[in-house]
Amino acid sequence: MISKDEIDATVKKYEKKGKFAIATVCSHTALQIFHGARQEKVKTIGICTEDRKKVYESFPYGAPDEFIIVDDVSEIPTEELLERNAVLIPHGSLVEYVAKKITEIPVPILGNRKSLEWEGDRKKLYEWMKDAGLETPEILQPYEIDRPCIVKTPGAKGGKGYVIVKNQEEFEQKVKTDNVVIQEYLIGVRAYPHYFYTPLTKDGYRASEGSVELMSVDRRVESNVDESYRTQIALMNIEPSFTVMGNESLVLRESLLGEVLEMGKGVVESAEKLFGGIPGPFCIETVVDENLQFFAFEISARIVAGTNLFTQGSPYTDYKFGEPMSTGRRIAREIKLAMKNKKMEKIFY
Amino acid sequence: MISKDEIDATVKKYEKKGKFAIATVCSHTALQIFHGARQEKVKTIGICTEDRKKVYESFPYGAPDEFIIVDDVSEIPTEELLERNAVLIPHGSLVEYVAKKITEIPVPILGNRKSLEWEGDRKKLYEWMKDAGLETPEILQPYEIDRPCIVKTPGAKGGKGYVIVKNQEEFEQKVKTDNVVIQEYLIGVRAYPHYFYTPLTKDGYRASEGSVELMSVDRRVESNVDESYRTQIALMNIEPSFTVMGNESLVLRESLLGEVLEMGKGVVESAEKLFGGIPGPFCIETVVDENLQFFAFEISARIVAGTNLFTQGSPYTDYKFGEPMSTGRRIAREIKLAMKNKKMEKIFY
Amino acid sequence: MISKDEIDATVKKYEKKGKFAIATVCSHTALQIFHGARQEKVKTIGICTEDRKKVYESFPYGAPDEFIIVDDVSEIPTEELLERNAVLIPHGSLVEYVAKKITEIPVPILGNRKSLEWEGDRKKLYEWMKDAGLETPEILQPYEIDRPCIVKTPGAKGGKGYVIVKNQEEFEQKVKTDNVVIQEYLIGVRAYPHYFYTPLTKDGYRASEGSVELMSVDRRVESNVDESYRTQIALMNIEPSFTVMGNESLVLRESLLGEVLEMGKGVVESAEKLFGGIPGPFCIETVVDENLQFFAFEISARIVAGTNLFTQGSPYTDYKFGEPMSTGRRIAREIKLAMKNKKMEKIFY
Repeated sequence: MISKDEIDATVKKYEKKGKFAIATVCSHTALQIFHGARQEKVKTIGICTEDRKKVYESFPYGAPDEFIIVDDVSEIPTEELLERNAVLIPHGSLVEYVAKKITEIPVPILGNRKSLEWEGDRKKLYEWMKDAGLETPEILQPYEIDRPCIVKTPGAKGGKGYVIVKNQEEFEQKVKTDNVVIQEYLIGVRAYPHYFYTPLTKDGYRASEGSVELMSVDRRVESNVDESYRTQIALMNIEPSFTVMGNESLVLRESLLGEVLEMGKGVVESAEKLFGGIPGPFCIETVVDENLQFFAFEISARIVAGTNLFTQGSPYTDYKFGEPMSTGRRIAREIKLAMKNKKMEKIFY
Repeated sequence: MISKDEIDATVKKYEKKGKFAIATVCSHTALQIFHGARQEKVKTIGICTEDRKKVYESFPYGAPDEFIIVDDVSEIPTEELLERNAVLIPHGSLVEYVAKKITEIPVPILGNRKSLEWEGDRKKLYEWMKDAGLETPEILQPYEIDRPCIVKTPGAKGGKGYVIVKNQEEFEQKVKTDNVVIQEYLIGVRAYPHYFYTPLTKDGYRASEGSVELMSVDRRVESNVDESYRTQIALMNIEPSFTVMGNESLVLRESLLGEVLEMGKGVVESAEKLFGGIPGPFCIETVVDENLQFFAFEISARIVAGTNLFTQGSPYTDYKFGEPMSTGRRIAREIKLAMKNKKMEKIFY
Repeated sequence: MISKDEIDATVKKYEKKGKFAIATVCSHTALQIFHGARQEKVKTIGICTEDRKKVYESFPYGAPDEFIIVDDVSEIPTEELLERNAVLIPHGSLVEYVAKKITEIPVPILGNRKSLEWEGDRKKLYEWMKDAGLETPEILQPYEIDRPCIVKTPGAKGGKGYVIVKNQEEFEQKVKTDNVVIQEYLIGVRAYPHYFYTPLTKDGYRASEGSVELMSVDRRVESNVDESYRTQIALMNIEPSFTVMGNESLVLRESLLGEVLEMGKGVVESAEKLFGGIPGPFCIETVVDENLQFFAFEISARIVAGTNLFTQGSPYTDYKFGEPMSTGRRIAREIKLAMKNKKMEKIFY
């Protein structure tokens, strides 16, 4: 691991120049990181492959000021970053892509790179959680499995590949990998509080020499388990109904946005070929399966009721417009533009 | 179908006058459409029945500038609309109410009215989706049913009337209508991305001559299937618990708002009669069944914890107040007004 | 019960002085109430125990202007409140803590304190709901139980202790308390519309002499029932998958925030001891069980994808920063501060 002294020397240099830029790999939470930096008037750099660039360019307020194009995002362009006085913001995809090499990167990384080995090694993680005073699920040995358990394989791949077992026999049947953790299956409802720890100010919730800030809370939507009850009912004798009564909001994994945009592009261009196009709002109704494959089952070539959630815009409109933009507002703006440019016939029929 | 040339001539007239108004039927996403148009300083017209008018009037920032009252929203007042240089924004309810006559309406409609027949005819829809490069669920013939399938009857009625079958026998028992589509039941989690296609600008995600914008994503809440697991557990031997740990936000179908407001009115007026009234915030705890009937099971005559979601307001407060309005802020404002008007005794006890 | 005349005299005094302050018990929706009052430039008072004070102080824009520290929040400091021209905003926790004594409190309470006995007594509640024209679930006698029923014990404790029974036998086995209500188990999807009734203005949805405003709608997340389908699948032969495809937002019960912040503090201080600390964003992945006990199963010492929901901030950042603050923006701001104070080595490695 690179020494803390070497990193300290680098940030001292940045401090002397009075300059820095925020850099990260274009994935995961990059749109949010760049959008937030722009709000704070901080320069941004996106490390990106050529084919993903257009996804980020399509959101002007979530795109970086500068792209550094790489063949493979696991190769962090450290020289270019240091020249630009860049600091790296680590996120789940960056950590996954760069893997162990991350500890050697000479570019300053927000946080403490030692935390990676404490998160990644389940034994150390449990030591940390216990030391922090957190309640944790029991960890069992195969011969101790006497209740539903979740078997976790090494590496954080977004939940994929976890296995449920109820006893040792099932464990031996289903689990072929080494270095797994057998965790008691917790019964309850998941919650993921998002914190920010600052050692620089004391006006939040005091922790150590600084303070902990609670930023937000989410619950993850996991495919297929989080609609499994819909499948179960399909196999039972109860007659399910599918009357829509409302809508709830969702953000997608940032890595899915490229495909989501490509689907939209496909629908538009195909519509032009088949029947002259579909200007204005539309929706593709999809199911995402456990391989994160989108399956479309409807298209609505107009405003859909789900947009009613977003009178103040959504994360995606924040990245695209930089101001509150509902689909309703977008409609009005499009017509104004068509009127101004005398192109109304392009969008009406 | 009316010709594209005729519509083009109409929009040319609007362009010459330099005037237009946004019109739609008061339902579905009308509050959002009018709210967005107001943000863009565009004139709005609501096509509305007399009895629904007060629902829309109760949201000043989501109401249209002008109402055209009709006996039946399936009758679009085309002359009045053309006189007012109106363009129509189609939404699901408008399309459903007006049905096939929509293709003949001489008022410019945002988008391309040819798309309607491509969405409405399942064979054409599949042709479109396949041509667009989308993955789609398999479509089966009755004798091919070898897994759970969803049987869809013609017309988009918000999901009502869909039937699940597992084999041909069940299909023949349960499905009596013709012209149905038998679709493989997809296992996964639903996602509904909302797009906007503009042929006028190229700064979004390039598609054809313009660009596709991703506006937002939702997941629909369907009654009764989306709480079916709660019912199932009720029939099992597991002891469910109902400890509230948090709240998630929701928007309701716009067509339900009239009933929601009437329920509120009923509770207020009844409270006055029975025990002197309930000034300030309150909540009616309800279940919505598959017929979209509300059943109340509690009333809380005070601020409830679910309002904590909406520190920046909700779509409903955006439509009512036109500025960020939490229930907390609403309380402070009410008391200020009562103080100013020396009416505090009206709201305290 | 204190007389309406006495309260009217008190509010008249406040009106003469032209002064008032908003007071409530620090719990439930207090952050929202104080945050909204601050937006309206109204003075606020928090009734709080010493140990909860730091939770509220950690959210400067959701904290009251003044704390009145009490040993027990069931003891409302009425003299101090009257001296400060305070009015009380009742919420679920205040009503639960103060219980029957609330009717005697000489401080003006927003709303009508008579409503409490109409909500709290199930027979009166049903009289009110029926009179208001609401549909309600059937109430059954033990010998009438012929379908799944939910048995509710007196007092509103957030859903805890409700029991499901299917017949009289099960009822007698499971229910030992008196004064219970046996309610038909409704099949559908829950919805909780939040209203505000103002007798002072008529520009909303007209009800009685004033109007009803629809503020927002939520659906409650209840532990463990609202993820029970995840447990069920764990006990079946279907192979569930846990691939994250998106995130949905959540607010937690306000009473859980203290523990959430303590958990964050524990993780920070433990990280310092074990490996030098974790400046910047982090997330603790938890399950909340039916006793509202948090169990941690992962820690991520970086920005997590769930924060993508909150480009405009969350209720918690509204309370902390008083302006739109995403985790992305928070990162940029932290680095700017470190740069300015030449403390970058404190947050990078």
